[in-house]
Amino acid sequence: MASASTTSSMQAEAFPDGTSEYKPLRASNKFDSKKPHISDQPMTLKNWPQHFNWLNTIIIIVIPFIGLISTYWVPANWKTVAFSIFYYFHCGLGITAGYHRLWAHSAYKGSLPLKIYLAAVGAGAVEGSIRWWSHGHRAHHRYTDTDKDPYSVRKGLMYSHIGWMIFNQNPKRKGRTDITDLNEDPVVVWQHKNYIKTFITMALIFPTVVCGLGWNDWLGGFIYAGILRIFFIQQATFCVNSLAHWLGEQPFDDRNSPRDHVITALVTLGEGYHNFHHEFPSDYRNAIQWYQYDPTKWCIWTWKQLGLAYDLKQFRQNEIEKGRLQQMQKKLDQKRATLDWGTPLEQLPVVSWDDFIAQSKEGKALIAIAGVIHDVSDFIKDHPGGKALISSAIGKDATAIFNGGVYNHSNAAHNLLSTMRVGVLRGGCEVEIWKRAQFENKDVSYVND
Amino acid sequence: MASASTTSSMQAEAFPDGTSEYKPLRASNKFDSKKPHISDQPMTLKNWPQHFNWLNTIIIIVIPFIGLISTYWVPANWKTVAFSIFYYFHCGLGITAGYHRLWAHSAYKGSLPLKIYLAAVGAGAVEGSIRWWSHGHRAHHRYTDTDKDPYSVRKGLMYSHIGWMIFNQNPKRKGRTDITDLNEDPVVVWQHKNYIKTFITMALIFPTVVCGLGWNDWLGGFIYAGILRIFFIQQATFCVNSLAHWLGEQPFDDRNSPRDHVITALVTLGEGYHNFHHEFPSDYRNAIQWYQYDPTKWCIWTWKQLGLAYDLKQFRQNEIEKGRLQQMQKKLDQKRATLDWGTPLEQLPVVSWDDFIAQSKEGKALIAIAGVIHDVSDFIKDHPGGKALISSAIGKDATAIFNGGVYNHSNAAHNLLSTMRVGVLRGGCEVEIWKRAQFENKDVSYVND
Ligand code: HEM
Ligand code: HEM
Ligand SMILES: [Fe+2]
Ligand SMILES: [Fe+2]
Ligand SMILES: [Fe+2]
Ligand SMILES: [Fe+2]
Repeated sequence: MASASTTSSMQAEAFPDGTSEYKPLRASNKFDSKKPHISDQPMTLKNWPQHFNWLNTIIIIVIPFIGLISTYWVPANWKTVAFSIFYYFHCGLGITAGYHRLWAHSAYKGSLPLKIYLAAVGAGAVEGSIRWWSHGHRAHHRYTDTDKDPYSVRKGLMYSHIGWMIFNQNPKRKGRTDITDLNEDPVVVWQHKNYIKTFITMALIFPTVVCGLGWNDWLGGFIYAGILRIFFIQQATFCVNSLAHWLGEQPFDDRNSPRDHVITALVTLGEGYHNFHHEFPSDYRNAIQWYQYDPTKWCIWTWKQLGLAYDLKQFRQNEIEKGRLQQMQKKLDQKRATLDWGTPLEQLPVVSWDDFIAQSKEGKALIAIAGVIHDVSDFIKDHPGGKALISSAIGKDATAIFNGGVYNHSNAAHNLLSTMRVGVLRGGCEVEIWKRAQFENKDVSYVND
Repeated sequence: MASASTTSSMQAEAFPDGTSEYKPLRASNKFDSKKPHISDQPMTLKNWPQHFNWLNTIIIIVIPFIGLISTYWVPANWKTVAFSIFYYFHCGLGITAGYHRLWAHSAYKGSLPLKIYLAAVGAGAVEGSIRWWSHGHRAHHRYTDTDKDPYSVRKGLMYSHIGWMIFNQNPKRKGRTDITDLNEDPVVVWQHKNYIKTFITMALIFPTVVCGLGWNDWLGGFIYAGILRIFFIQQATFCVNSLAHWLGEQPFDDRNSPRDHVITALVTLGEGYHNFHHEFPSDYRNAIQWYQYDPTKWCIWTWKQLGLAYDLKQFRQNEIEKGRLQQMQKKLDQKRATLDWGTPLEQLPVVSWDDFIAQSKEGKALIAIAGVIHDVSDFIKDHPGGKALISSAIGKDATAIFNGGVYNHSNAAHNLLSTMRVGVLRGGCEVEIWKRAQFENKDVSYVND
């Protein structure tokens, strides 16, 4: 493929694997790469202010806190509260359907109006630009749980929730990823270059103006539909990085931290089936059952019906079932290894038929079944089929009797039998009793009819 | 073992497998074995009365029906109703803890007083003598679901519930079993020989007298604590033969009909974990979890604490887990067979390294991984890691890149990959790109640090 090498060469300047270090498009955020980064130094009484990313701390913690306190003086207007909730869902969708599934994972394609809408309401959630967010998220998928994962849950639940933002991180630590596609998307580039304008407009001005012009609640609009709504969206969507890597089941793979849980789904507009998502990241769905809560999926599907979204990607059910099956198999194999399956055949002594007969005559309760000699002494009194039947097989090859001749023993009986192994018959599996009967020309029948 | 042959010879008169035909101890119930049995003839307008076992029909259906109607004239005294329920549980236990677990399955041993109590209250349930009941039940376990099973559910739910009793059965059809132990138990033999006296005393006279002498409700005692209580016990315990083979899960074996269900357990004093029970019949428990309903087990355990019962048999947890695991494995294997795992390697053409390179140069999107050639043409645009990365591996051996060199692909990715197989490399699995780099003495590195 000629075109392939062209595409990959576009990013190949930096690294042979087609990825590049994340380079901010706007600022020239310089720092001395010789000096060790602040995050690599222990926090002390003197240097602690340098450890904090103050801009993020103010946006994520200080402002919401002021907003919360000011509700004491700013009464809640029910129209403002209703609009806040309504707008909450739009901005939430901006993150889940826009930032996450559309841009970070290319799980579907969006028409220009849809992309503009998602870039706008996504900015209203105040979680950084699409470009920055998606780069970090791709690193999170590619390097999940490692040091290169920007919000690795292995560093603690709080770290993955907000710690990674409020403390300064070494920019060199974050894994590299390929964002060629995003750099080619004009909506992404525009939003990134004008991010500060965009987010102030969408997160603060727009809701204030709506509540102000609509029902003259300018201050309420600013506090409730602006600041507090931002706070709730942030905390909810951050749960995808924390809760979704901490709470729930792992039906597809348990080597890494992602988990499926309905609580996470309820909090995050459907991003709660995160074990599935890490396994099938470019699937436009997170929940694959119709009864599971995934409103983001429902919206994308609706946009498709309206002609606003297309090329919805979906892994084949066959691939999904294969993953689930392999994980179940793994669990089963782990369980199997903890159980006692009897002495392995290769560790048993090889015994001749005549020795077997001789030892049985000496009083040992030995029974040969399928070429293996079993010592049933301790079991005779417990045999569910009675003492007489099991005793009648001592010193004989009971392969046929045991397997239906007299009674077709259950799986459980076969398992139990294998724990009684004491030797392997030389010559292997032979139905001795039948051979003898034929030889002596007698009619010994163990069939029941 | 010398004693073994002695034990087995005691029953060996009849059949070489140590069992015997069920022979009534009392009557000499003769029938002409030459003439075909009535159950082998179709029911006609003329012969239908001969098809019915009238004694059983009267006991199981007619009398309860009369009892039900007579409640219209006999008012229910609350003391009588309370006593009926109390006595119901005793007689129910007679069947579950006595007839079933103690005598039919020897799941534990009982002291003489306990055995007398169980034989007495068991007779109060009016389900035949211990000897007759246990013989049939052992045949049911040994020949489950076959024609020799006296209450095979394969003949219909109603047949297994009561049909097998109200219609005459060919006595030759019922499977043979070993009841030597029962013939040696004086309580069993006495109860069998005096069965009619015992059951009339325990099922009718005793409850009537208690209610009569106790609170002067002679007629109510007869109808409620006698007839109607018998009816409810019968219907409840019959559910073990019907419902327990029809409703629920099969965690241990799905080749036969027994099933586990909490509803059956609630109805039958804990005999509802029937799939477990058929697999581990001589376990004194039916429910193995503490939170499952098995009052019969709780009673046996309590009797043990009181010194009335001993030698409680229990299969090792290891054996139980093995059974459960094998059934899960079976389910998984069935599921596995329905999925598409890609063309098997042995059906793929063998391709030389140079042909692979040549075809890739001609524009085919081929990637070699672990000695297998994959056609990724249709997947490039869908690749979650981006077009550039996957394209950069075309015409190369990407074993190392795919398995961690660039990105350690998930299980899901490996599964997907196997559906894209088109050929096997001659020479097998070779990390060509590394070999070439070494040969050309260039430093090609795909590691990320
Ligand atoms: C050699 C070791 C043996 C073991 C470990 C064994 C184990 C068992 C077990 C666990 C059961 C309970 C039902 C089941 O799980 O299928 C059972 C039932 C039975 N066994 Fe065996 N058995 C052995 C030998 C024999 C022999 C040699 C005979 C016959 C000659 C025999 C005849 C029966 C019969 C007839 C039953 C059915 C009893 C009933 O369900 O009422 N068994 N055995
Ligand atoms: C040859 C067939 C390939 C298949 C079928 C395939 C499949 C996939 C799949 C299903 C994923 C989603 C995550 C996962 O399941 O692990 C993925 C992610 C990824 N693949 Fe591939 N891949 C292929 C080749 C490559 C190659 C050759 C490279 C690198 C040169 C590559 C690099 C990546 C990266 C970096 C990711 C992570 C992207 C992210 O999570 O953001 N893949 N691939
Ligand atoms: Fe994640
Ligand atoms: Fe994701
Ligand atoms: Fe049964
Ligand atoms: Fe049973």
